[in-house]
Amino acid sequence: MDIKIRSSDPAVIALCPVAEQEGIATVFDRYEMQQPQCGFGTLGLCCRICWKGPCRVDPFGDGPQAGICGAGKDTIVARNLIRMMAAGAAAHSEHGRHIALAMQRVGKGELPDYHIRDEEKLKSIAGRLDIAVADRTITDIAYDVATKTLEDYQNQDSKVPCHWISASLPAKRLSLLGKLGVLPHNIDATVAQIMSRTHIGCDADPENLVLGGMRGALADFNGMALATELSDAMFGTPKPVVTQANIGVIKKQAVNIAVNGHNPLLSEVICDIASEMNSIARDAGASEGINIVGICCTGNEVMMRHGIPLATNYLSQEMAIFTGALDAMVVDVQCIMPSLPQISECYHTEFITTMDENKMPGARHVSFHEDKARETARKIVQYAIDAYGRRDAKRINIPDIKQTAIVGFSSEAVMAALATLNAADPLAPLVENIVNGNILGVALFAGCNSTRAIQDENFQVIAKILARNNVLLLATGCGAGAFAKHGLMNQQATEAWAGDSLKAVLTAIGVSAGLEGPLPLILHMGSCVDNSRAVQLATALADRLNVDLSDLPLVASAPEAMSEKAIAIASWSVAIGLPTHLGIVPQVTGSAVVTDLITEGAKDLFGGYFLVESDPALAAEKLVAVIREKRHALGI
Amino acid sequence: MDIKIRSSDPAVIALCPVAEQEGIATVFDRYEMQQPQCGFGTLGLCCRICWKGPCRVDPFGDGPQAGICGAGKDTIVARNLIRMMAAGAAAHSEHGRHIALAMQRVGKGELPDYHIRDEEKLKSIAGRLDIAVADRTITDIAYDVATKTLEDYQNQDSKVPCHWISASLPAKRLSLLGKLGVLPHNIDATVAQIMSRTHIGCDADPENLVLGGMRGALADFNGMALATELSDAMFGTPKPVVTQANIGVIKKQAVNIAVNGHNPLLSEVICDIASEMNSIARDAGASEGINIVGICCTGNEVMMRHGIPLATNYLSQEMAIFTGALDAMVVDVQCIMPSLPQISECYHTEFITTMDENKMPGARHVSFHEDKARETARKIVQYAIDAYGRRDAKRINIPDIKQTAIVGFSSEAVMAALATLNAADPLAPLVENIVNGNILGVALFAGCNSTRAIQDENFQVIAKILARNNVLLLATGCGAGAFAKHGLMNQQATEAWAGDSLKAVLTAIGVSAGLEGPLPLILHMGSCVDNSRAVQLATALADRLNVDLSDLPLVASAPEAMSEKAIAIASWSVAIGLPTHLGIVPQVTGSAVVTDLITEGAKDLFGGYFLVESDPALAAEKLVAVIREKRHALGI
Repeated sequence: MDIKIRSSDPAVIALCPVAEQEGIATVFDRYEMQQPQCGFGTLGLCCRICWKGPCRVDPFGDGPQAGICGAGKDTIVARNLIRMMAAGAAAHSEHGRHIALAMQRVGKGELPDYHIRDEEKLKSIAGRLDIAVADRTITDIAYDVATKTLEDYQNQDSKVPCHWISASLPAKRLSLLGKLGVLPHNIDATVAQIMSRTHIGCDADPENLVLGGMRGALADFNGMALATELSDAMFGTPKPVVTQANIGVIKKQAVNIAVNGHNPLLSEVICDIASEMNSIARDAGASEGINIVGICCTGNEVMMRHGIPLATNYLSQEMAIFTGALDAMVVDVQCIMPSLPQISECYHTEFITTMDENKMPGARHVSFHEDKARETARKIVQYAIDAYGRRDAKRINIPDIKQTAIVGFSSEAVMAALATLNAADPLAPLVENIVNGNILGVALFAGCNSTRAIQDENFQVIAKILARNNVLLLATGCGAGAFAKHGLMNQQATEAWAGDSLKAVLTAIGVSAGLEGPLPLILHMGSCVDNSRAVQLATALADRLNVDLSDLPLVASAPEAMSEKAIAIASWSVAIGLPTHLGIVPQVTGSAVVTDLITEGAKDLFGGYFLVESDPALAAEKLVAVIREKRHALGI
Repeated sequence: MDIKIRSSDPAVIALCPVAEQEGIATVFDRYEMQQPQCGFGTLGLCCRICWKGPCRVDPFGDGPQAGICGAGKDTIVARNLIRMMAAGAAAHSEHGRHIALAMQRVGKGELPDYHIRDEEKLKSIAGRLDIAVADRTITDIAYDVATKTLEDYQNQDSKVPCHWISASLPAKRLSLLGKLGVLPHNIDATVAQIMSRTHIGCDADPENLVLGGMRGALADFNGMALATELSDAMFGTPKPVVTQANIGVIKKQAVNIAVNGHNPLLSEVICDIASEMNSIARDAGASEGINIVGICCTGNEVMMRHGIPLATNYLSQEMAIFTGALDAMVVDVQCIMPSLPQISECYHTEFITTMDENKMPGARHVSFHEDKARETARKIVQYAIDAYGRRDAKRINIPDIKQTAIVGFSSEAVMAALATLNAADPLAPLVENIVNGNILGVALFAGCNSTRAIQDENFQVIAKILARNNVLLLATGCGAGAFAKHGLMNQQATEAWAGDSLKAVLTAIGVSAGLEGPLPLILHMGSCVDNSRAVQLATALADRLNVDLSDLPLVASAPEAMSEKAIAIASWSVAIGLPTHLGIVPQVTGSAVVTDLITEGAKDLFGGYFLVESDPALAAEKLVAVIREKRHALGI
């Protein structure tokens, strides 16, 4: 097996040879095996929307220029793109619905294993959704919040936008989106309508299709926003916490359980139960008891709420098993490699799926339902303890690679830190420092890892250059995971990489907030479903300056975007007005029309647009230029 | 241009040379241009679900056996298949929602251009949905029926199945589907959940995926059933009517307007308005006034309700323009070839899109909204009259090819015809003749045309063999269009092709019902959204015999299935227990597991299963054998 490790993560570089020695293929091998990848698909020119096809449009103009039905390259590319947006919106919004339905049952007193842990957050949400809170029980408020949230999956009046998006964006932006006809009224209906309009023989107009897709992307925003906010109410709003990240967080003397996936409903209970079952683990010989570690965005969820260390992010999730010391991997939904059960079978690792709609061949399935959450979690943890007994000591190989990370910067946490500088007007220090140029601008990093880049590399290169240029950096998802693993989410990183004026600001806030030093170089704002946190902060800034989001010196970057969720996120980022960098060439270049639409065309319509640049240093330069351009337009 | 005409339709054979002479590519040319089609896609082994891909699994086992994420052939094939089911369900259900929302507004008195034309049907629907009718106005009932229907897009309790499916299938079948966990509770949510579970890193279990897809397919059934039934209430339940089919229905001396697409909300009003504007057309020189003709399923809708002649079905929709006498083509949604606007531009034909979510480059867009339905329709008809003046007489070429067709056999119409034999117990004559073997069984033809077959050929060959074997034949959609065009929906066809005992039964019913001869050889049950009509009849039969649908000597056949809607239909046909023939190899054969699941595996789970056979004569033999097997099991 010829392994070419496409990763900058030292843990991956340490463990890939183990995989090779074991003769087990990893994602990096499968990437090699897939070369060369289909050019038609890569350009977006392959259509598999009906069984007359597959059809392909020749990008060189010599061969066919339309599919059998007559759809040309622009139609085909646009349809493929917006179906991905729809799938992303569906994935995030299912996550959101799951939380909302659980909260509704908490409100009805049906789920004794769950509680409203952050009552203030719930009340603040209720306020934004126009739900009364005075003289009411928390469960009653929770019921109403959940019920009103679920209306965003039910409303049939296309003229009335979803509650959550209406409560989450500046009025100017909502007005623009309304005029463009892209405000979603119902998440599910919007997903279904994208699937319908892309059915054979329906919408063939690329601009109309892309606008329809943007409505889907904004439905994704809506689903994400509600998922994040209700999760905070149920499980607590993140506050800064010091933890560690990378594969070295796996402990030889502990029962190691990795939680992988996205949804906190399961992982939160696993964390609780694990702490109760430590003595059983110790009785089984694990002197350090149970060690929960996170992977991917479940990792982010439990890291920011409980300081649970992060083992790794998306592309390297297989590596955890190659340590030989992972006793169980427990997964829920999204971005879980289907290779994991097979790799687990080569080791002692218990691989456990938990969601009835997300099973995997070769996995043990333990059906998780909220009404038996603790009971199910106990069963799962016991499987891990049992597996610990089956470890093969000779195969244990845990690279001692880990970094300190300070995580948990919800927008509330950021505001709380700012409030230590100015309690009466917490935004003031931020506004002042942006206006006076100490902070040049703000960049939000989001999105996945992809084999189309060197894992984590783009994130690091861009972030360091932006930081040197005094750009305040925020991150979520596997981007946040990358930064945490590579030591860019701690105070040392601020000292090492921040430009002078940014460093001064981060230090002033950090010291004032009791961190005895600067804020970390990059603020961890959560999992990939949590991008609405940054939007919340941006909306507060825009409202404060009485401008639209597109006027702010604010950019987004998804240097290794891969999943349909990431495509949806990047698209709504454009729709809400942000210049949005993609480090991976989007699969639309087979159509100049669509390519123009999502870059130049989008700029005219939304203010936001896609900025595609796969060279990370160049990308950073371009992002700095965009920020300067925005400042110039604002006259600051 | 090397034209190889893949059609058995004499009108297509006559007009393709015209296209060639004009130098205009048709669907048949584009089919040739696309050869060879991608083998990976054809086998279902191409994955484009994330931007790490595209990935392909080598069907020969030499190359990669998994995508980059680790998804193997079974996962990839299953995901691709069920996303098609989801898209089909979305398309049908958007159509249904459109009707339901319009009916709700009729109920509120907001749409003066629409009325409840079949009050009895509305009341019968209300009864099935447990809505009171006594002492209530029709508009109040309509409002309640629409509102309760819309709950099937809103319900968030996954334990409570959709109203419509619950009201439409035998209790035994509902119980089985409930046990299998495939009863949909909400159409939109089911579509979104399929998109979500097929997102990268979610469900990888092929059986779990296929069952999830089946829930989507049953959501498709739900959406179709409500679309059909509410359309009947709004526009009238079809009754037998004599008309004509094929391209010769276009009239040289008339302003010819083709309505193409699916949704009756627009076409019904066009028909009304056209009859009011005849004198304007005559003033413009068209001595025969306005001639509305139908194409595809809008064609079926207006044919069965108004006797409007059918110009052609899906694969030959372009041909209508080549007559040089089509003054306008007015389209709404689904199965409209994106090539049509370009071809129209080569002629004088006005090509008009009407739905804001379904535009086409090169088309004139006249935005249709129900509150200005008549006004919009008038504008559209005027465009056609204006275009008539721009005709080029030298390019007019209308092949005199058409056939008589008796259409409009809704289940109510069939029951009414049977009631003329036994008013007290209309089902009795049907049951008796099935039990005594005069009718060997029943076959429902549905689905599209595909370039993967010779257009209409499979339909004709199979139908004639089944008829000779005394199988009662029903048809919808482009299958019905094929039979109508080829003269198999008239009394002469019954004389020519029906087996003796079938002929005797069809004659007895036809004469008794006042047709002065037999029923047509194949009963036209509507457009492709209308397959629930046949299920209604089958359910009545099953209930009468106290058996499940899978016990009946009843089969379905989609000899040229192509669209995602057809894939959804064929899948619910399997789920409700019907042996379902596909004349096109489904794009799943890259996975033996999925192929087995939808054939043998489905048989064990549902009673229904896919029977794949591309040779039409062999397919007919197999269907007869299946019917005999079912009879044997029933002891008849």
